[in-house]
Amino acid sequence: MTNVKTIAAGWEPSRVSALRDVMSAMKLDALVIPRWDEQQFEYVSLANERLAWTTGFTGSWGLSIVTHDDVILFIDGRYPEQAARETNSDWVTLQHLYEEPPEDWISQHAQAGWRVGFDSEVVTPDLYDRLQKVCEQKAALMQPTASDTFDQCWLDRPETPSSEVIQLSAEWAGESVAEKLARVREQMRLAGVAWLVETQPDNVNWLLNIRGQDLPYCPVVRARLLIGLKGEIHLFGDVADSDAEALASADTTIRCHARDQFLNTLEHAIQPADCLWVDPTQGPQCGRQMAETVGGGALTNRSPITDLKARKNDTELTALRSACLSDSAVWVRLLHWLESAVHSEVVTELGVEERIHQFRTEVDDYTAPSFRTISAADGNASLAHYSAPADGGATLKPSTLFLLDSGGQFSRGGTTDTTRTWCFQKPTSEHRRLATCVLKAHIAVAQQVFPVGTLGHALDSAARLPMWQAKLDYDHGTGHGVGHYLSVHEFPQRMQKSGTTVGLEAGMTLTVEPGFYRADEFGIRHENLCEVVCCGDGWLRLESMAFVPFNRHLIDAEMLTPVEQAWVDEYHRQVYARVSPMLDNDELVAWLEAATQPLTGHRS
Amino acid sequence: MTNVKTIAAGWEPSRVSALRDVMSAMKLDALVIPRWDEQQFEYVSLANERLAWTTGFTGSWGLSIVTHDDVILFIDGRYPEQAARETNSDWVTLQHLYEEPPEDWISQHAQAGWRVGFDSEVVTPDLYDRLQKVCEQKAALMQPTASDTFDQCWLDRPETPSSEVIQLSAEWAGESVAEKLARVREQMRLAGVAWLVETQPDNVNWLLNIRGQDLPYCPVVRARLLIGLKGEIHLFGDVADSDAEALASADTTIRCHARDQFLNTLEHAIQPADCLWVDPTQGPQCGRQMAETVGGGALTNRSPITDLKARKNDTELTALRSACLSDSAVWVRLLHWLESAVHSEVVTELGVEERIHQFRTEVDDYTAPSFRTISAADGNASLAHYSAPADGGATLKPSTLFLLDSGGQFSRGGTTDTTRTWCFQKPTSEHRRLATCVLKAHIAVAQQVFPVGTLGHALDSAARLPMWQAKLDYDHGTGHGVGHYLSVHEFPQRMQKSGTTVGLEAGMTLTVEPGFYRADEFGIRHENLCEVVCCGDGWLRLESMAFVPFNRHLIDAEMLTPVEQAWVDEYHRQVYARVSPMLDNDELVAWLEAATQPLTGHRS
Repeated sequence: MTNVKTIAAGWEPSRVSALRDVMSAMKLDALVIPRWDEQQFEYVSLANERLAWTTGFTGSWGLSIVTHDDVILFIDGRYPEQAARETNSDWVTLQHLYEEPPEDWISQHAQAGWRVGFDSEVVTPDLYDRLQKVCEQKAALMQPTASDTFDQCWLDRPETPSSEVIQLSAEWAGESVAEKLARVREQMRLAGVAWLVETQPDNVNWLLNIRGQDLPYCPVVRARLLIGLKGEIHLFGDVADSDAEALASADTTIRCHARDQFLNTLEHAIQPADCLWVDPTQGPQCGRQMAETVGGGALTNRSPITDLKARKNDTELTALRSACLSDSAVWVRLLHWLESAVHSEVVTELGVEERIHQFRTEVDDYTAPSFRTISAADGNASLAHYSAPADGGATLKPSTLFLLDSGGQFSRGGTTDTTRTWCFQKPTSEHRRLATCVLKAHIAVAQQVFPVGTLGHALDSAARLPMWQAKLDYDHGTGHGVGHYLSVHEFPQRMQKSGTTVGLEAGMTLTVEPGFYRADEFGIRHENLCEVVCCGDGWLRLESMAFVPFNRHLIDAEMLTPVEQAWVDEYHRQVYARVSPMLDNDELVAWLEAATQPLTGHRS
Repeated sequence: MTNVKTIAAGWEPSRVSALRDVMSAMKLDALVIPRWDEQQFEYVSLANERLAWTTGFTGSWGLSIVTHDDVILFIDGRYPEQAARETNSDWVTLQHLYEEPPEDWISQHAQAGWRVGFDSEVVTPDLYDRLQKVCEQKAALMQPTASDTFDQCWLDRPETPSSEVIQLSAEWAGESVAEKLARVREQMRLAGVAWLVETQPDNVNWLLNIRGQDLPYCPVVRARLLIGLKGEIHLFGDVADSDAEALASADTTIRCHARDQFLNTLEHAIQPADCLWVDPTQGPQCGRQMAETVGGGALTNRSPITDLKARKNDTELTALRSACLSDSAVWVRLLHWLESAVHSEVVTELGVEERIHQFRTEVDDYTAPSFRTISAADGNASLAHYSAPADGGATLKPSTLFLLDSGGQFSRGGTTDTTRTWCFQKPTSEHRRLATCVLKAHIAVAQQVFPVGTLGHALDSAARLPMWQAKLDYDHGTGHGVGHYLSVHEFPQRMQKSGTTVGLEAGMTLTVEPGFYRADEFGIRHENLCEVVCCGDGWLRLESMAFVPFNRHLIDAEMLTPVEQAWVDEYHRQVYARVSPMLDNDELVAWLEAATQPLTGHRS
């Protein structure tokens, strides 16, 4: 099966030479190649794995600048080890995406007269502005490439997928397309724009109440939209005629075009007085450019759909809760199996990943993993975004400290994401102390009351402050949004160290996932998916939708305050009450009962 | 005595008419009038109180747009009540400075062809960009005014002060001007700029190791600098010839010019290839404009001096600690006097303000208040930035909940800022509960360990999270920087709700001042000035420099955790140990001993 690893594994220098030949023909001195494609999304189709083809790097985010002398790969803090392993250092030079960003490289290396090629359907307005500013300083030129440069050098390029469009009823989505569209258009009216470009696949699928299978992990149809304040909606994608007919006859008329008709249609749609709304970091520069070319203006603000989608309606929340509960029962089965299997059979990291997938397939609406499972023993768990290799990876031993971060897509409306850290014999006191510290951080967020509109960084602090007190920290965010049978990484809500600007509101979903990592030794993370709920006028708190026991052997009850102990006991009481009715055998129920006993004493 | 209140109190509509006549002569449709002047500073000289003269508003921050039909006054969340009281609503319309900012007003009201006047030495690049963007959209023109518009209509304008320059020795400052300048020029070199414009008076005075008396509350010489990467430094201000000679003969040559020679000198200094460094929010638009006009470029980043000044050296910290300790003894005298006086004489809010000033004058290096003291009884304490009126204000009763926020300037190198909330009889249980909640917030910050580079919003959260848990909050930041015998509000370090980007480092100073306010009833705030200190490799915490007892009657020990109780007891132990040797009579010592007893039991 072709996947991104196959594309990357086939890397050889001739690819760079072939690309440079194309660049020469186009008179380009440099070419900017982001990981993302014209959808500006975390997931891309195989045909658009341009970065993996060019450099061999398979991470989810990054960017390359290729010149006739250099291939620079810009990666973030998650990927230095993986990028070093996957790329050939004779050919590819690594740089930090944020600390030594592409614009700095251009500023240092571009010569006067350089032509820096970029695909204006792919590059975002924000990236364009940063590059354009330094190009101007260096008297270099940002040169849009007329068509996809890679068609001419990537000869065995995979086909672009074209999956069936799955129509969702309003009952399932909780809101009709017409109602959603009215809310989007109200935001457009308030902003004074005539058109909105929407390229994020999850936003497009949410708005149109559709789903698909075009991308790994995220159940969407790859399509872009051009939404007028009035009249038609234009959709650009590889949609079958029958699907196009269905979309055109829905209560809101959607006109389907071929994927490559985007710019052409935009050019004819925008009138000189029109303002076009383009997302600055998740939209295409070509949109803004076109609006300016025809004499209109561009509004570069976050897409209104991103914000509307973030506040889940009751139907969506009910479905999410249900999927999380189904998945919690899967987790209980997995942990029960694992505790025994580690002592009796050869269990590899890949084996655990396959087993949880297998258990999930017995849930009738499970469709696929929501991300590549991180099944990581001991030191492997200290690597961000580790995935078990094809040979199975490490074998779990009784002494292993094991981290499992896994989730599924459920077609009745759920996307899940849970992490548990497990031990299989009496843990070391250090593992126990650290796991308890991380649990204190988790509880701090889970029980925190906060005012409506609180910014995500404040809740990130809630997790980190008790860990800092013990001089511990972790180098990732505390939580991210999660979609309704959509992307497991959803914007704009976030809990992170650096400043956020999005106020939290009831109905948003967020993971809570503090951790602690010691390189080459172990990783600890405790993650639940939560919803933001009201708790009195103007006040909010989080409520977990996942009900999976925390490993009691890794909790030092003496380190917990009475309030923290009570939180753990009440959470475990709920785990047992909610999940035990879903288990089909007494042994599992007995296991869960034992796993959810109060920390001190026994439940009466 | 003329002060800003006198200028504001003399407001009459004829001022606006006179200003409009000048605008007509200059063919202006609108004029932008910020509170700040060409120094972009919180404090301005009386001659530059243009906003108070035009509108009657005396707040420390704000901006007006005057047209031939309207006077719009933009104010922030601290000032709606004060602005409504001070301005005539027939003439002046109030708008929120951040929620309905000036650019929105321009966007809604400007007509094509409008000429919007602004003083380009006063308006910052950031404000200019925001206004310019909407003016361009509306086909209006941003029109720099050639000279100070107010000279032609403000006929009884006060003189610009010109105080003596006080030279500080390197021993006193802890670093010579040459050493400071070398560090500034290293930053300039790294940034690739040939010139730096510095207009912040505290930055100028810090760099040149000088002080003065040109402004209220902040002991500085009003002057601006143009610093070359090499060679001379140009100073623009009203400096006496003898002072200019002294500056010119110092180890670093400083050439003094008249205040109005700034633009002219800049024009001749910058060469076409030069890049000029201008602070975007605390620097002048004219600098950037001039750099671009002569063919150079401008770097709009925060001034490097702001960052260098923020990290205090050992000499500065020693002086600050010493001033805080002297001031703590003043506070103890004040609180001792107050507790008795409230029951035996008529004590007004203004009387307390005068009394603490009088006690401070007995400290030999005290020069002036570091800000207008907030002496506020009961409901008055719920007003942000209340100041007692000339008639004395409220009389303190035994039942009063009293808030005193006061600080001084000490010429051996200290600026202080402390707040205490006090009661004079058994407090209500509600006052006690709320004062204890605020104390918990204070302790949370005071005892928090955090990694080097932590952003200020994380410590703001440390204060707020325990208050949120009780569904309480406060509408101001948790802390601000404080200078070394300079401004009591120092940048860039801050603890605030919204995202910050400045990492905290050892040697920075910050107030810790959570509060709780109930409109018309009371205000509670507990404030200490702290320094950031190392506590292990890569870890920091705060250490209080102020040693003033918290009112024990307002602390409900049962609401405190053992750790919080221990913090209070240890703080009070230090208050007694450090301050009692400074007290000159036994009654005071006995009072302090009682005021600093452990919360439960007695100190052995």
